[in-house]
Amino acid sequence: MKAIKIPEKTVTRLSIYLRCLEELENDGVVSMSSKELAERFGLNSAQVRKDLAYFGQFGVRGLGYYISALRNNLERILGLKQGWEVALVGLGNLGSALISYKGFQEKGFTISAVFDQDPAKIGRQVEGIQVMGTSRIVPVIRKRKIRIGILAVPAASAQAVLSLLVEAGVTAVLNFVPAQLTVPESVKLQNVDLSVLLKTLSYHITRTGRPSARKT
Amino acid sequence: MKAIKIPEKTVTRLSIYLRCLEELENDGVVSMSSKELAERFGLNSAQVRKDLAYFGQFGVRGLGYYISALRNNLERILGLKQGWEVALVGLGNLGSALISYKGFQEKGFTISAVFDQDPAKIGRQVEGIQVMGTSRIVPVIRKRKIRIGILAVPAASAQAVLSLLVEAGVTAVLNFVPAQLTVPESVKLQNVDLSVLLKTLSYHITRTGRPSARKT
Repeated sequence: MKAIKIPEKTVTRLSIYLRCLEELENDGVVSMSSKELAERFGLNSAQVRKDLAYFGQFGVRGLGYYISALRNNLERILGLKQGWEVALVGLGNLGSALISYKGFQEKGFTISAVFDQDPAKIGRQVEGIQVMGTSRIVPVIRKRKIRIGILAVPAASAQAVLSLLVEAGVTAVLNFVPAQLTVPESVKLQNVDLSVLLKTLSYHITRTGRPSARKT
Repeated sequence: MKAIKIPEKTVTRLSIYLRCLEELENDGVVSMSSKELAERFGLNSAQVRKDLAYFGQFGVRGLGYYISALRNNLERILGLKQGWEVALVGLGNLGSALISYKGFQEKGFTISAVFDQDPAKIGRQVEGIQVMGTSRIVPVIRKRKIRIGILAVPAASAQAVLSLLVEAGVTAVLNFVPAQLTVPESVKLQNVDLSVLLKTLSYHITRTGRPSARKT
């Protein structure tokens, strides 16, 4: 396969299309045109066709997409045909919520190793997983060949913990820590900074001014 | 001021620059060139200059930026000179973690109204806030003129709750629900779908194959 650079946003949208297809499949829909898909889910139909075209020819002329087949293809493209083990570091409020979050498990991502540096937490069972100290990150992740990490530690220790994850062989990290962290080029760092998201909202409210009068 | 369309990514980066400036200010740094800024925080210096140029001339030739003044300007641009009240709907694991999340408060976002539809939760105090039923969304938010909402409810009720928030006058929503939701054009919807983020990571691991041998 030729190495075409796929835009980041296309990859994100594939996941969103997949979610739409799952919903359609649950509703018993067999096929649908890109136009109908776009209308139902508030997508852009030209964008849908363009995004999918990076990966092959999935549409059938005059009919659209077979929902089940397209779902299957998107799962394959996104690497979701296998389950993924995930290591979580940091068992504060956010980390604890993430462990209990059903959405990950449903989508094939299982948090199977949990680390924290707080002696009061180490050894405890959380959602059936025994919490380990951060000194165990490298040996445990190496042994289990875990490739995905979630970082939810305090900002002050984030870079050190991230470096341990990378040393252990993790190549993709979902980072909730509001700090500028660096990884080698081979590692994919996905930042989720909740405060930054709220600030972009604040920007929009400030710039757009008061909402126009609503119809009642 | 002329209405120039500012790219979404620029707005996001302004928040990130602001975080860097706060760190520098805490360290007692008075001024810094865009090049030094970029090096210290792993940013792109041309990008920094371009992003800031949308909003004015902040640099001083031969010196760079005055850290404190630039922080002040970014706070003003992002609408952070005032505090914001935030309404949270949905008090599951994620909602509970968000209420306890210190990062929001520190950045001027105060969750001051909490709604859930579970009778067992209504009336309880959580972090000093009394939980209200979802039937109170419209009157309470209208009365308090809350403009920002956080949505953390089950997918099945997400659109209905979102419509209530919009009816109540909320114009910016941080949405954690993994569903395709629609809002009027005047409302800014910021989606955070954790599963989608993990899927983009899965894509990257799958596409890039095994990591190359690491130096030891």
